[in-house]
Amino acid sequence: MRSIMPPTDNAPRRALDRIADVRVTPIALKDPPLLNASGIHEPYTLRAIIEVELASGVTGLGETYGDMPGLLHLQAVAPLLRGLHVMDVHPMGRIVNSVVTQQQMASVPSTVLDVATGSLPGKMSAKTYAAFETAMLDAQARSAQLPLADYLGGRVRDRVPYSAYLFFKYAQHIDAPYLPDQWGEALDPASIVAQARKMIDEYGFKSIKLKAGALDPDIEVDSLLALKEAFPGVPLRIDPNANWSLATAQRIAKRLGDCLEYYEDPVGTLEEAAELHKSTDLLLATNMVVTNWREFAKNLNLGSIQVILADHHFWGGVRATEHLLSMCDTFGLGLSMHSNSHAGISLMTMTHLSGILPNLKYACDTHYPWQCEDVLEGGRVPFVDGCVEISDAPGIGVELDREKLAQLHQQYLDCGYTRRDDEAQMRKYVPSHKKFKPRY
Amino acid sequence: MRSIMPPTDNAPRRALDRIADVRVTPIALKDPPLLNASGIHEPYTLRAIIEVELASGVTGLGETYGDMPGLLHLQAVAPLLRGLHVMDVHPMGRIVNSVVTQQQMASVPSTVLDVATGSLPGKMSAKTYAAFETAMLDAQARSAQLPLADYLGGRVRDRVPYSAYLFFKYAQHIDAPYLPDQWGEALDPASIVAQARKMIDEYGFKSIKLKAGALDPDIEVDSLLALKEAFPGVPLRIDPNANWSLATAQRIAKRLGDCLEYYEDPVGTLEEAAELHKSTDLLLATNMVVTNWREFAKNLNLGSIQVILADHHFWGGVRATEHLLSMCDTFGLGLSMHSNSHAGISLMTMTHLSGILPNLKYACDTHYPWQCEDVLEGGRVPFVDGCVEISDAPGIGVELDREKLAQLHQQYLDCGYTRRDDEAQMRKYVPSHKKFKPRY
Repeated sequence: MRSIMPPTDNAPRRALDRIADVRVTPIALKDPPLLNASGIHEPYTLRAIIEVELASGVTGLGETYGDMPGLLHLQAVAPLLRGLHVMDVHPMGRIVNSVVTQQQMASVPSTVLDVATGSLPGKMSAKTYAAFETAMLDAQARSAQLPLADYLGGRVRDRVPYSAYLFFKYAQHIDAPYLPDQWGEALDPASIVAQARKMIDEYGFKSIKLKAGALDPDIEVDSLLALKEAFPGVPLRIDPNANWSLATAQRIAKRLGDCLEYYEDPVGTLEEAAELHKSTDLLLATNMVVTNWREFAKNLNLGSIQVILADHHFWGGVRATEHLLSMCDTFGLGLSMHSNSHAGISLMTMTHLSGILPNLKYACDTHYPWQCEDVLEGGRVPFVDGCVEISDAPGIGVELDREKLAQLHQQYLDCGYTRRDDEAQMRKYVPSHKKFKPRY
Repeated sequence: MRSIMPPTDNAPRRALDRIADVRVTPIALKDPPLLNASGIHEPYTLRAIIEVELASGVTGLGETYGDMPGLLHLQAVAPLLRGLHVMDVHPMGRIVNSVVTQQQMASVPSTVLDVATGSLPGKMSAKTYAAFETAMLDAQARSAQLPLADYLGGRVRDRVPYSAYLFFKYAQHIDAPYLPDQWGEALDPASIVAQARKMIDEYGFKSIKLKAGALDPDIEVDSLLALKEAFPGVPLRIDPNANWSLATAQRIAKRLGDCLEYYEDPVGTLEEAAELHKSTDLLLATNMVVTNWREFAKNLNLGSIQVILADHHFWGGVRATEHLLSMCDTFGLGLSMHSNSHAGISLMTMTHLSGILPNLKYACDTHYPWQCEDVLEGGRVPFVDGCVEISDAPGIGVELDREKLAQLHQQYLDCGYTRRDDEAQMRKYVPSHKKFKPRY
């Protein structure tokens, strides 16, 4: 007597839930001349939009980095996913791994692979997987007629708070490829306060992050102290992207006193971070030195970092990030979300993911206010009181505007950039510029 | 202009997918007089069967430990889950945590909480969560008309291999509560070889595990060496449940030579295991000293254990175990599945979970051959060539026989056992018996 039931006739449903087509479309979004530890943002930020279309017509959306060689990997994987069931994230992962390995061994020139950490072999697999996993989860949730947050296990909040992400910047890109942005120059404390005021007025953010590591550290600290005075009680963070030596980070910590909600990536190694934490007792946050499980385990030993800034794009997708966040809970670490320049699909995926985390203690990062273009039907994602809402619409709750997608893809083809290089861009302004860390 | 879509009218579907009823039914299964490091199995093993019934009529099945005080927690949580959506595992988890805390603070006497590791506060939350999560996942998969393995991301195999799980045993329970089992006495190498022969003939297992820690270690090793001679080439394991000192474990390792596929829980601490691994170079496995993430992290430091025996029942459910297994992959650890005495629902959940793991290197453990009763429609789960099949039926692929459930629940009420205590059971045979580790 067999207790296993005979197969039911679920073939029709399963056929409808199979992947009929996967499209990977690189786009370029206008990006302001924002200064950072490497140099300066180029006039365009590159993203890739993923569409996973099922036989039922339901289409899941994903967004990831648009630079080479990541894009080549996405494009190599995409056609191989046709015919998989929308639930088949494990087979998808095996396809990703086979392509990543093959490409690394063969067709991608090693000079292209070497330019950025995000393009190193160790991240290629996780970020390629994440791009398709998020789109497949979106398609799953849409098929189940559930918002992604509810599909992932049930939201704990209907709106996710983000922080005002301030940058030192120039008023205009060199060579002026298009009209200047609305934000103007910001190279001193007064203009940073003005930038914060404008951004908070428009978006309603309740906390502030200052990107540092670009100018002399004391100008950056003066700016943070000016923000403290201008916005009393508003949580503040500073992020020099590991561009400070341990000694500088310790000196700055003294100047900042109890100013900070957390101190993000002041130094470049877990060992230095451990020393800094011990000597200052400040909460340290990172998206640079805890970026995979090996580093996570090492951080547990050293006690370096107390707040992990998660990012589903490079942590291996939504499910892996969900687990990262429960690991943070297990080990008593705080958490929030890291951001690179991105469009609305990434924002909505981050929002739904953040919507299920009971232990989200800090407002998430987003570069979204710095972009003015997007691929969404009905315009850009709105912020209310610094938050993005999780609606009751299925999936991530937004739809693709194919005309805008086509325009921004054309902009990608026209702009001439194929990989992010903030250092080379800065050499257009300062021919002798060279990235090295720590600079200060 | 809002890009967020207006809510769609998905209320009817969502209402059907809500939890209408949750039933927790303790059952008792006849269990043979199997010897182990604590003492001897009682005549009945206690399990709890979980049914999560949706408004649509779809019912998800789960199975977990049936002993107090775990059962009290299951029963306290069950009514609170009514009205949750079947996807709402996170809200379910918060309900579990609130009840676990409340019960620990109030109604459960602390003397009941102290009897077994599985009942300690640190495991109560994870095992209660797991019981409902597995049933909810089964209901989700059934609603999606997909086998659980496919619902979880896509199977990599259609059949999952298990090992022959041998025990030293008596022929009959003291007081003879029912007729003797079919296996007879096994207290020496010859009878263990006979037991293996019978079990392999009936089930087709391709590997063998010997439960040790019960008799003099040299009798146990003699038995393993006899198995090696009787079944040449068949992978062998021995598991003394941490009942050996480091010195004994090292001495036994010498006697065993290269006999073992892995050496399971010879000693009781990660520190001793590290020393043992260093001194013998044998692969060590565990379900006792790496049972949560803290221990997992500690094991990474010490390099003690090379094969993790996962168990969704106490690791916090299917999704957590899936992640554990990807963590094993990340850190180069082998893995397989641990088992306690169980019925067919646990077996099928283990099978579907194992069905999605590309890196499953070893046949899983199961006590299933030692039980003769089950709650499934159509009889007990069949084994083919030592494997359990993953069919195309939805969910875990088996259905509950409510009449058998009622009979085995009555057996629970009649048997008089409410918590597992192998030590007290052994005192019925040997009044001076006392559990202490390591005994040898």
